[in-house]
Amino acid sequence: MNERIGFVGVGRMGANMARRLKDCGFNVAVVHDNRPETARELARELGSHPAESLADVVAHADLIFTVVTDDAAMKRIFASKGDSLFKGAKGRIFVNCATLSPAVHTELAKHARKAGAFTLEACMASSITQARNGTLYLMIGGDDVVYQRIKHVLVHLSDDGKLMRYVGAAGRAAQMKALVNMVMNINTAGLAEGLALADALGLDLGTVREVFSQTGAASRVLATDGEDMQKRDHSCYFSAGHAAKDSGIALALARKARINAPVATAAHAQFSRMVAVGLGELDKSGVAELTFKGRGRRKPAPAKRKK
Amino acid sequence: MNERIGFVGVGRMGANMARRLKDCGFNVAVVHDNRPETARELARELGSHPAESLADVVAHADLIFTVVTDDAAMKRIFASKGDSLFKGAKGRIFVNCATLSPAVHTELAKHARKAGAFTLEACMASSITQARNGTLYLMIGGDDVVYQRIKHVLVHLSDDGKLMRYVGAAGRAAQMKALVNMVMNINTAGLAEGLALADALGLDLGTVREVFSQTGAASRVLATDGEDMQKRDHSCYFSAGHAAKDSGIALALARKARINAPVATAAHAQFSRMVAVGLGELDKSGVAELTFKGRGRRKPAPAKRKK
Repeated sequence: MNERIGFVGVGRMGANMARRLKDCGFNVAVVHDNRPETARELARELGSHPAESLADVVAHADLIFTVVTDDAAMKRIFASKGDSLFKGAKGRIFVNCATLSPAVHTELAKHARKAGAFTLEACMASSITQARNGTLYLMIGGDDVVYQRIKHVLVHLSDDGKLMRYVGAAGRAAQMKALVNMVMNINTAGLAEGLALADALGLDLGTVREVFSQTGAASRVLATDGEDMQKRDHSCYFSAGHAAKDSGIALALARKARINAPVATAAHAQFSRMVAVGLGELDKSGVAELTFKGRGRRKPAPAKRKK
Repeated sequence: MNERIGFVGVGRMGANMARRLKDCGFNVAVVHDNRPETARELARELGSHPAESLADVVAHADLIFTVVTDDAAMKRIFASKGDSLFKGAKGRIFVNCATLSPAVHTELAKHARKAGAFTLEACMASSITQARNGTLYLMIGGDDVVYQRIKHVLVHLSDDGKLMRYVGAAGRAAQMKALVNMVMNINTAGLAEGLALADALGLDLGTVREVFSQTGAASRVLATDGEDMQKRDHSCYFSAGHAAKDSGIALALARKARINAPVATAAHAQFSRMVAVGLGELDKSGVAELTFKGRGRRKPAPAKRKK
């Protein structure tokens, strides 16, 4: 329990993971964000050091969680030149939680080894509430030895480890995550079409959702997003922009593997369209704005953010 | 319990519903099929009269279940001329269980009234095993008075009525059923893409299915069809041909209602392609034959039919 823990990227996910580990008695020594005020606020809340630079994070932590947006952000914080998490990184362990292209993880693992550091993927298939409660579904990829060294920390994020799966070498967790989200996005976009058609036919959507839940139409996203689609409550758990990105990663893998994926392609096009028309910040349930009659011409009234 | 019950269409579904009602002590008086030997066999098993004509069914039954394939078959058995279930139908109640275009139900209800008969939709969102066990999910459409008159029979098909929902006037149940199957088919076709990509990437499909089941990728079809896709066990519960038909009905409704449904369209194209390449008799899980590498060039070895 003595390791100094750092967080890079303390948006809604990262901040809640940091809070959770703090609650569990860990030493959250340092936090950083590319929005300095965000980092300073969280640092005040947790009694951590608000690092002004990436090198400053490395100087203050042994185990560093990175919870950034995408491949580009990841390449920025692990740059080969300038301010970088590789500065003075010898012996450090990086746990990378963003959904990235699998190749980025394998590249990173290679560069880390050269810098004398270690990396682990911890891809998350859950959202903000779960981060706060320590009930994230974690898919772990990387060197098993590294995994064993920090497992005692990760279990506190994943319901005593009940929700954690070691899936293989570096890049494997990112593949798994991309697959999960590809299928989730298909189910979400498909549900939005079903409910929109039901609505247009004048069926009662409460009854429709109840019937769906009892039949072959049942799915996790029906439970998490069905009512939100009906009520146009698209406050963000998992944004349409992220959905578009993750389906895009999966489809790039599919193209490379020569797998025909027309349904995933159609779902990806829907989430990409949301981004294109300025709805990318809505929750993925917002895909219903593209399918329901009379919606989508304007943004729905801003609902307050869920925590 | 004194009503004489008839069945028209005693394929796998109809025959098992008849068996179930017989087990529950009802008088299954007469059965008919357009394959006379099929009807005769079941008649021998249940001690029923094997009707050689539709008029003969009407003569022997008060309550008649029709469990036929599609709109065309339905129009044939309820023809305005020649041998027809409308011959001598005064006072009869017809319970129509096939998945039809909603408009066929409304038409039929109208013609039945003229003939002094009554109709009810009982759309089923389950399959052969559930028919045999009396645990069908039934969506009921039609006149509520008619429903109340025969509810005491229908409950024995739907787990004491726990799985039965009255959804509205004639045609409403067919709409609901089309929606259920549209969404189910999307989830199925999407799952087949996810598992095929996982397989191509060399991930362990057992682990992938387990991870899917714990995350936003979870769905009813993952539970019912995931392992079958992996093992290529496509013995028929619900055929790809039926999937194509039902998604087609939903998409026709969507076009009429001007609802944009690109994901449903992509899924429909996959099941239609199965029919086109001669795989329409496989279970819907057989859509994985179109997505997995190295499959689909030939039919999988015929698995024995599940009952």
